[in-house]
Amino acid sequence: MAGYFFSDNTASVSPELLEAIHEANAGQVKAYGDDPWTQRLNDAFGKFFEAEVFVFPLSTGTAANSLALATLVPPYGAIFAHGEAHIVRDECGAPEFYTGGGRIVEVEGADGKMNPDAFAETLDAWPTSVHTYQPSAVALTQATELGTVYGPHEISAIAHLAHKRGLHVQLDGARFANALVSLDVKPADITWRAGVDVLSFGATKNGALGAEAVVFFDRALVRDFELRRKRGGHLLSKSRYVSAQLLAYVETGVWRRNAIRANAFAARIGAAAADFVMHAVQANEVFLRLGDSRKAQLRANGFHFYDWGAERSGEARLVASWDQSESDVEALCSALRTL
Amino acid sequence: MAGYFFSDNTASVSPELLEAIHEANAGQVKAYGDDPWTQRLNDAFGKFFEAEVFVFPLSTGTAANSLALATLVPPYGAIFAHGEAHIVRDECGAPEFYTGGGRIVEVEGADGKMNPDAFAETLDAWPTSVHTYQPSAVALTQATELGTVYGPHEISAIAHLAHKRGLHVQLDGARFANALVSLDVKPADITWRAGVDVLSFGATKNGALGAEAVVFFDRALVRDFELRRKRGGHLLSKSRYVSAQLLAYVETGVWRRNAIRANAFAARIGAAAADFVMHAVQANEVFLRLGDSRKAQLRANGFHFYDWGAERSGEARLVASWDQSESDVEALCSALRTL
Amino acid sequence: MAGYFFSDNTASVSPELLEAIHEANAGQVKAYGDDPWTQRLNDAFGKFFEAEVFVFPLSTGTAANSLALATLVPPYGAIFAHGEAHIVRDECGAPEFYTGGGRIVEVEGADGKMNPDAFAETLDAWPTSVHTYQPSAVALTQATELGTVYGPHEISAIAHLAHKRGLHVQLDGARFANALVSLDVKPADITWRAGVDVLSFGATKNGALGAEAVVFFDRALVRDFELRRKRGGHLLSKSRYVSAQLLAYVETGVWRRNAIRANAFAARIGAAAADFVMHAVQANEVFLRLGDSRKAQLRANGFHFYDWGAERSGEARLVASWDQSESDVEALCSALRTL
Amino acid sequence: MAGYFFSDNTASVSPELLEAIHEANAGQVKAYGDDPWTQRLNDAFGKFFEAEVFVFPLSTGTAANSLALATLVPPYGAIFAHGEAHIVRDECGAPEFYTGGGRIVEVEGADGKMNPDAFAETLDAWPTSVHTYQPSAVALTQATELGTVYGPHEISAIAHLAHKRGLHVQLDGARFANALVSLDVKPADITWRAGVDVLSFGATKNGALGAEAVVFFDRALVRDFELRRKRGGHLLSKSRYVSAQLLAYVETGVWRRNAIRANAFAARIGAAAADFVMHAVQANEVFLRLGDSRKAQLRANGFHFYDWGAERSGEARLVASWDQSESDVEALCSALRTL
Repeated sequence: MAGYFFSDNTASVSPELLEAIHEANAGQVKAYGDDPWTQRLNDAFGKFFEAEVFVFPLSTGTAANSLALATLVPPYGAIFAHGEAHIVRDECGAPEFYTGGGRIVEVEGADGKMNPDAFAETLDAWPTSVHTYQPSAVALTQATELGTVYGPHEISAIAHLAHKRGLHVQLDGARFANALVSLDVKPADITWRAGVDVLSFGATKNGALGAEAVVFFDRALVRDFELRRKRGGHLLSKSRYVSAQLLAYVETGVWRRNAIRANAFAARIGAAAADFVMHAVQANEVFLRLGDSRKAQLRANGFHFYDWGAERSGEARLVASWDQSESDVEALCSALRTL
Repeated sequence: MAGYFFSDNTASVSPELLEAIHEANAGQVKAYGDDPWTQRLNDAFGKFFEAEVFVFPLSTGTAANSLALATLVPPYGAIFAHGEAHIVRDECGAPEFYTGGGRIVEVEGADGKMNPDAFAETLDAWPTSVHTYQPSAVALTQATELGTVYGPHEISAIAHLAHKRGLHVQLDGARFANALVSLDVKPADITWRAGVDVLSFGATKNGALGAEAVVFFDRALVRDFELRRKRGGHLLSKSRYVSAQLLAYVETGVWRRNAIRANAFAARIGAAAADFVMHAVQANEVFLRLGDSRKAQLRANGFHFYDWGAERSGEARLVASWDQSESDVEALCSALRTL
Repeated sequence: MAGYFFSDNTASVSPELLEAIHEANAGQVKAYGDDPWTQRLNDAFGKFFEAEVFVFPLSTGTAANSLALATLVPPYGAIFAHGEAHIVRDECGAPEFYTGGGRIVEVEGADGKMNPDAFAETLDAWPTSVHTYQPSAVALTQATELGTVYGPHEISAIAHLAHKRGLHVQLDGARFANALVSLDVKPADITWRAGVDVLSFGATKNGALGAEAVVFFDRALVRDFELRRKRGGHLLSKSRYVSAQLLAYVETGVWRRNAIRANAFAARIGAAAADFVMHAVQANEVFLRLGDSRKAQLRANGFHFYDWGAERSGEARLVASWDQSESDVEALCSALRTL
Repeated sequence: MAGYFFSDNTASVSPELLEAIHEANAGQVKAYGDDPWTQRLNDAFGKFFEAEVFVFPLSTGTAANSLALATLVPPYGAIFAHGEAHIVRDECGAPEFYTGGGRIVEVEGADGKMNPDAFAETLDAWPTSVHTYQPSAVALTQATELGTVYGPHEISAIAHLAHKRGLHVQLDGARFANALVSLDVKPADITWRAGVDVLSFGATKNGALGAEAVVFFDRALVRDFELRRKRGGHLLSKSRYVSAQLLAYVETGVWRRNAIRANAFAARIGAAAADFVMHAVQANEVFLRLGDSRKAQLRANGFHFYDWGAERSGEARLVASWDQSESDVEALCSALRTL
């Protein structure tokens, strides 16, 4: 099934993580997170993040984002996010559902990144009366939905604005590893040190079998989260199999190896199609303004990818994942170079 | 880790199902259910149920129950269930959350089974005004939370009462395989043929790695369900790994082999403690009124199980699962016989 | 239209309160509560309650109860209430709707009053895990739905149990004036002094034109309430007309005059039917076990009232309101005496 | 308190409607809408609208809009509305609350009116997958929040687009009378004949004491609405006082007299400030781009009004209501002419 550049969700599971599942499959252990693997998450992630953290395994990123936000935001709370954010476009209203009717307010910015000035202006202009939603949280995405990444200072600038006004900061890290590799910084640098209160830590797109985590850097938020998680049907009875993957993911360097590979593929694809690149290729996604005929040509050659943007915009999204084959990527690059 | 009789959730994953995960781990496939395994679910389960069915993989039973009910019940809808039901006692309000504030109304009955006469009386006495919840669904559990099973006629009696008044019928089949084996009937006999509209089909407790399914016997309910599932964060991006397990589970007879084993263990435990048995042992759970000192004695001998009922009631729940060892069960039976 | 004993909701508006509406109808004032009448509520009720209070006018009692509870209770919170409570039986799930899916747990007790021992037992037996609702509030009704009243010590006993475990105490005072008159105590004695955190203060049933108030004795809860009120569509643009009634109600003694009259009528009715009285007549409601033929006889004589209890239980509820005519009551009493 | 041009919510109650309240204050009648006034609403409004209608009295416009939309829109439904709409800017998320987390999608258009082409484009570009909200309703405002009105053809153009795709059409008629007078059409022409499915019929801003109605032109939607209304705490026990006003409002021509007066005042104000007018003055609201110093000057002269638009935009909103005095309006016009 060569030539799949649809999404990193189409990738298979990394052998190291499958192996972790096998190792966890050893007899009976207590359910619902009282197992040795889940119990070790806080320590393992604490080392990874160089901080005290509270980690909760989940099976989807939509659940991670929505449950995290529900803990931060009252039903009458406004969540500020970029218009391209997954919570805006791709979750069928999960944040609205979990918050009990919160509202997402879009804040613009180039290349999928929220512009801090636009955010400040939005907050400054916000009415304070009971007639409107109350600003409660800002949600960023790292790497962004357009394949770019926020630098630590970009995150802290927005977090600073947020905290000054009493808003919480949530980070959708569905492609967190890709951002870490791209920036070559420590996990702490783009999370708690930059002002992030809670992180949706994604592993699924980078090689796991339905393994995500919500990571809190603030103990006060944890109890509410746990109850909302159970209530949302997201407390896994056999948590060990997700937790074991998460442990292997952060402890054995799978996160880095897989992200390096995916990012490198994307960089090559971007370089091969340099004339068409719409946003800097900083993670594992490439956005190209190819025009409809070039897109058709690529597809005729067996390459699969999603259309992007408005109909007939001629835009395409190509995503590289950890299990892309060398030869598929090379074939794609060749095809792109000849367009 | 001998002597674990806490719950069938503590069991490991059955080798056949782990194998199915491996087989599904073959390169890239489309995400969110557009994969060959998920696409085959309707057919495979259609054969299993001898009917046209619509099957949706999920990772938890709480999600299965709540999402199914949310599709059947408006926010002002009443759901009738036995007081021991999982949705009443163990889901932290997931059905209320997913239905937008529906209410569960308890209907009594011996041995964890809803009494049809009590159900009829409850319905007859229900006010019809706008001041009260509107009867919308009945939720049964098979096998029940007290280890008993409904016969086909018991289900159809209740379903008949429900349908006559326009209520839907949902079946929580977290231990559906145990019930099937216990009754020695066909899956159809205790589902659509008996009037069940939607089934929460559990595999996790019987050997799977977080694999459940909602099975609709009525196409009209499907679209609403799909949107609520996504919105609840329960549409799995890498659905293939759950679907592959579900296929193996129904197609290779794992469901039957594992349930036979677990039920047989429970039967032996029940027989060994016949004087203390509280409810007929018809599936894989045994409820014993041992008294506090006998319970302490068993625990001192290394057997693990949960207290049941009110504090100092002396009641205990012992659950047998597919991966219990022969020797553990025998040791437990010996210990019980000497009490 | 003689002989109406259906409900105190069937009564007309007291002339003093209609007069207050007229006085408030003086030109333009700011909307949404920024008017002189609404601005004076905290002071006027502060004097009434001998405490700092925060008062919010509303047009229905269901809104008062549900909004108050929503401020006290998270979506995963349990509300303890007597099985006869309005929030249980007559609000079509408004508390569940406003809390985002909270659950009401019934606690028994004779004569419509929650038994403190039963409440303590329920709390003691409550599991603490994330799998169940978290105890969050107790809701009492004063006067109760069965026409009885709680003494100050009865309220404080329950409030003490609640506060010890971190639960809030809400009082449904739809018939608060009737209880005050019955007990001959000060408003403080059965509210904040007894441990009540928030009161649904009813005036509608006692002579007002859709005028209720939520009264907080704790400032910390107020902001959340105000936002939920707006969001529920219960912030009245022309608040002055409700506030002016509430001011007249507490400041001119209408509350007392009307309640004295209604209670006295009920006492006479109860005395006339002493053999049939089911619960002590302590407010303005009378419950009689008449049997179906006597009920039919009364109705044939032109007296209107609701059936109560189960079908063919022969029970009847008769409610006296402030605008009952002397002659109607006397006629009813005569009829009852001859039964 | 001369010179109040804040809002038509600041106006007092029209004498005819106060009189209607008095007439309704005649002894006991059944509660919760089973009274003679409420029972006559369908007929009276049926004549007004020349159609079979189903009318429900309410005390706030926010409730009317939100409850109507909740009946039309599932929790995963998108509601299309102009960015200036009351449901977008002024209801603290009531539509999101009542729909269980629906989302409002803004569609642009000049002068507060949704542009049909923009609406068509938005619908055409909408993804159909389960990952996004499902288009469910369009909500228009008549007169708009910028004081303009939709002609019958403008409404039917949008309604046609909506119905073609299975969306319902809701009309926020908080200033419906002002629009009717402005257009000089029949009520049917801008409601059901133009494709409106449900109308929020406002009377409060035009002289009533908290009297609004939801008017359905489709019987199928009614039962769901009634249950949601009760559940929202919006079923008034003493409905008669709102219903009596609504009857007087439509039957005696108060709606027309008051709207004519308010519209005429606004026209004069607009003419006096013609150089500053931002949007055609078609109802009872006038929007002026005065600049900050002129605004200060007006205020120094005792005229009260709200700022509009962004800070330092220099924009002002002046609203004329039925009870504005001739002399106040004339004084304002003089002041405006000298600016």
